[in-house]
Amino acid sequence: MAKSSRQRPLPKRVYESRLPALREELIQLQVSLQSAAFPILLIIAGDDAAGKGEVVNLLNSWLDPRGVETFAFHDLSDEERERPLMWRYWRSLPLRGRIAIYAGGWHADALEQNPVSRRELALFAETLRHMRHFEGLLADDGALIIKVWLQLSSEDQAQRLHDLEDDPATAWRVSADDWKNHREYATRSRLSAQMRRATHRPNTPWNIIEASDLRSRNLAVAELLLTRVHAHQQARAPQRHHPHPRPIVPLHPSGRQRLRALPLDQDLSESAYQAKRDKWLGRLNHAVRAAAEQGRSIVWVFEGWDAAGKGGAIRRLTSAIDARDYRVIPIAKPTDEEKAHHYLWRFWRHVPRAGRVTIYDRSWYGRVLVERIEGFCASSEWRRAYDELNEFETQLTNHGIIVLKFWLHLSPQEQLRRFRHRETTTYKRHKINDEDWRNRRQWRAYEIAVGDMLALTHRPDAPWHLIPADNKRFARLEILKRSCNQITAALRA
Amino acid sequence: MAKSSRQRPLPKRVYESRLPALREELIQLQVSLQSAAFPILLIIAGDDAAGKGEVVNLLNSWLDPRGVETFAFHDLSDEERERPLMWRYWRSLPLRGRIAIYAGGWHADALEQNPVSRRELALFAETLRHMRHFEGLLADDGALIIKVWLQLSSEDQAQRLHDLEDDPATAWRVSADDWKNHREYATRSRLSAQMRRATHRPNTPWNIIEASDLRSRNLAVAELLLTRVHAHQQARAPQRHHPHPRPIVPLHPSGRQRLRALPLDQDLSESAYQAKRDKWLGRLNHAVRAAAEQGRSIVWVFEGWDAAGKGGAIRRLTSAIDARDYRVIPIAKPTDEEKAHHYLWRFWRHVPRAGRVTIYDRSWYGRVLVERIEGFCASSEWRRAYDELNEFETQLTNHGIIVLKFWLHLSPQEQLRRFRHRETTTYKRHKINDEDWRNRRQWRAYEIAVGDMLALTHRPDAPWHLIPADNKRFARLEILKRSCNQITAALRA
Repeated sequence: MAKSSRQRPLPKRVYESRLPALREELIQLQVSLQSAAFPILLIIAGDDAAGKGEVVNLLNSWLDPRGVETFAFHDLSDEERERPLMWRYWRSLPLRGRIAIYAGGWHADALEQNPVSRRELALFAETLRHMRHFEGLLADDGALIIKVWLQLSSEDQAQRLHDLEDDPATAWRVSADDWKNHREYATRSRLSAQMRRATHRPNTPWNIIEASDLRSRNLAVAELLLTRVHAHQQARAPQRHHPHPRPIVPLHPSGRQRLRALPLDQDLSESAYQAKRDKWLGRLNHAVRAAAEQGRSIVWVFEGWDAAGKGGAIRRLTSAIDARDYRVIPIAKPTDEEKAHHYLWRFWRHVPRAGRVTIYDRSWYGRVLVERIEGFCASSEWRRAYDELNEFETQLTNHGIIVLKFWLHLSPQEQLRRFRHRETTTYKRHKINDEDWRNRRQWRAYEIAVGDMLALTHRPDAPWHLIPADNKRFARLEILKRSCNQITAALRA
Repeated sequence: MAKSSRQRPLPKRVYESRLPALREELIQLQVSLQSAAFPILLIIAGDDAAGKGEVVNLLNSWLDPRGVETFAFHDLSDEERERPLMWRYWRSLPLRGRIAIYAGGWHADALEQNPVSRRELALFAETLRHMRHFEGLLADDGALIIKVWLQLSSEDQAQRLHDLEDDPATAWRVSADDWKNHREYATRSRLSAQMRRATHRPNTPWNIIEASDLRSRNLAVAELLLTRVHAHQQARAPQRHHPHPRPIVPLHPSGRQRLRALPLDQDLSESAYQAKRDKWLGRLNHAVRAAAEQGRSIVWVFEGWDAAGKGGAIRRLTSAIDARDYRVIPIAKPTDEEKAHHYLWRFWRHVPRAGRVTIYDRSWYGRVLVERIEGFCASSEWRRAYDELNEFETQLTNHGIIVLKFWLHLSPQEQLRRFRHRETTTYKRHKINDEDWRNRRQWRAYEIAVGDMLALTHRPDAPWHLIPADNKRFARLEILKRSCNQITAALRA
């Protein structure tokens, strides 16, 4: 007699009669996905012995492998350990139009922390918060996230372990750990319920699937996949274009005021500059090496008006750093693989390992600057980006990475002078093009967007440094000083 | 008085008068590279204190950062250690049209082995052989590899260390290790000369640049870069297309004979199959887990006629492996990033970590099969590919990876039957298209190409298993058996 918690088993005959149509539907689904502008993340998590691996294998056998990848997370590698936790999940994301199946997913990773103490529980909650944010951010970007929890009662779990052990073909799957986990069923169950609550949200819900009957379980997962994908395809509005951006209205006028109040008439003689520069370069070198010794990485973010001197400032900085320790990432047009991912993926990609340095020449702030102004993304997209950027940087700083953000500020008159100089200097001519002149005509709009950025993403752990840059020497020196001071302060903290 | 070994220093005035034209040329060079179909690898190696880092920094300041990346190799990460040595260099290759600057390059890595014993020296020679092959393979593919050795005499090295120490701005660059290395100048010099000899070849030569005078050194490196790129651009023939492949003539008829001699009339009842299958699945599971316990990875390569049952065979295999331990990599159209690299890059990308499994559904052998037959690559390209593929696999097997290669063989009659069956089975219809029918018409050409592949890439460490596949059950069982046996034998060896 079947136990009360069990469903009535689906007869094999019924199951097999359904398969051909189901497999046909799955294949047609994949064909229709090829032109889809969104990725699918299918997470197969669940109670121990509920058959996560079986389900993953089965889906792989039903789907055309050319559009599917399976990811499983093992112990952290050192390359992963040296970066914020979410880095390993960012690097395992599917391209748009493709399906990723996660055996256990990040959720299983989190549950393995097995938190007991108050501190561990707080860390667990924090981890879940990051995961919830991660899923929300991908879903907001159009990704379809289907989360399956295969549920098995304690009695069914014992029964299943016995069944597996009794069959010589599957006995290997049962280990002593499985029985230990079984004895801890109640605790583990409570913890996973807590995890599901913490990561449940309307657009990334958990789907509980009863797993005691294998055939019903298999059908339920496949049908869920079909239903959710069809619903997602229908719900998605056709791709909107934003060719006529709306007028740029400040969200936080205080930022623009701060910008406008910045004095730009500094003076610094060449000789005074050189003397001070060498002193600060030496200090910077010490600070960067001290950070490396503690395994702390450094991320520099350079934003500023065209011709404000970002490149020159970066070259001065890097002359004080061992060439083997830093990388400069100039942010220009994304590659195809980058375009097929969430916009933050290309920045996560270059997060430095412990003790190394990444310098972003332009950055993720493009989302709320050029993309906002040119209408490259929808209003809802750049509006929520402030939160996304703050969260991204918080994950960096929480991991101990020192984040230095510079806005190089220029007067329109000085920019004009530099544009003209570039046009008449042969080896600088490549640095000026029509786009620069076009951006210049949008000065007021940029001023508003920069102001909002300063107001909404200035945080104690990653403050914005506003650098008056009409005088290049002054700007470079100021950047060196501020960098040294922030790094030194971060190491003392 | 300048020491005899030194060049006459270049006056600062002369140096600075040359810079604007030089920088202009470098920038124009980069503009011309944007449409180039080849990558540039610039290796800056040299004696200690010769200023490798300075030169790298300087080049970075002269070049437009949007087309340049700098790579430096530190201690191996565990993700690197668990793969063949060359994996870390493969993952640091530039896209076509871009420049990668290597501070020290793989050569510095090799020199750091500092070999003394006979065994170490043999390993050193082996490493250099891999590097020489690596460079040759990239150069054959059109890459421009510029290798610079900055040379500094022992006296000049001492002088330079003193100079650096005397200047407070640079004193930090001199460590106790530098002086220790200086005392070992003769030994280190001999070793690096040996390294240069072993990795010197006509299309990837070493360029020795005297580094005692910094300004002359800087100019020499920049001018070398300019000269080599211009020469490379002129030497490269315009991209050839190969729309009319020449008739396919066997290189090694023995391979085709082996193929034709294979009996295809095996019989195996469903019940006999099922009983044996479960036994062998159990054994395979044990074998794979035993390999993982020893940190041995497994690579399966599946090649075969269209409809020969590769997918089905892979699904049977994977049902015996923990879903978290394997990845199936279906080889279809490369992504844009893959296309912008050497053809082997996309396979190196997926080489498994220690104890994991990668299953390639079609593989690098496409180079000598479809690419040869369809004329997708030049005759010289597929002809040298046999060596490249053997070397690639040897690097895997030398690292302890178990490489299993299967050719699933089919009679033309059976293929026809399966094609027709696919056309009439709804959920299989996506698996058959015009290309399959077109390939089928090329049966004879493929037979020749497969024969050559079998003859030229069958090696004791990675033998080809020819599997009669007219009977699917027989084929699947045979693959299980052979896999178990090869893995078990490899673990015993």
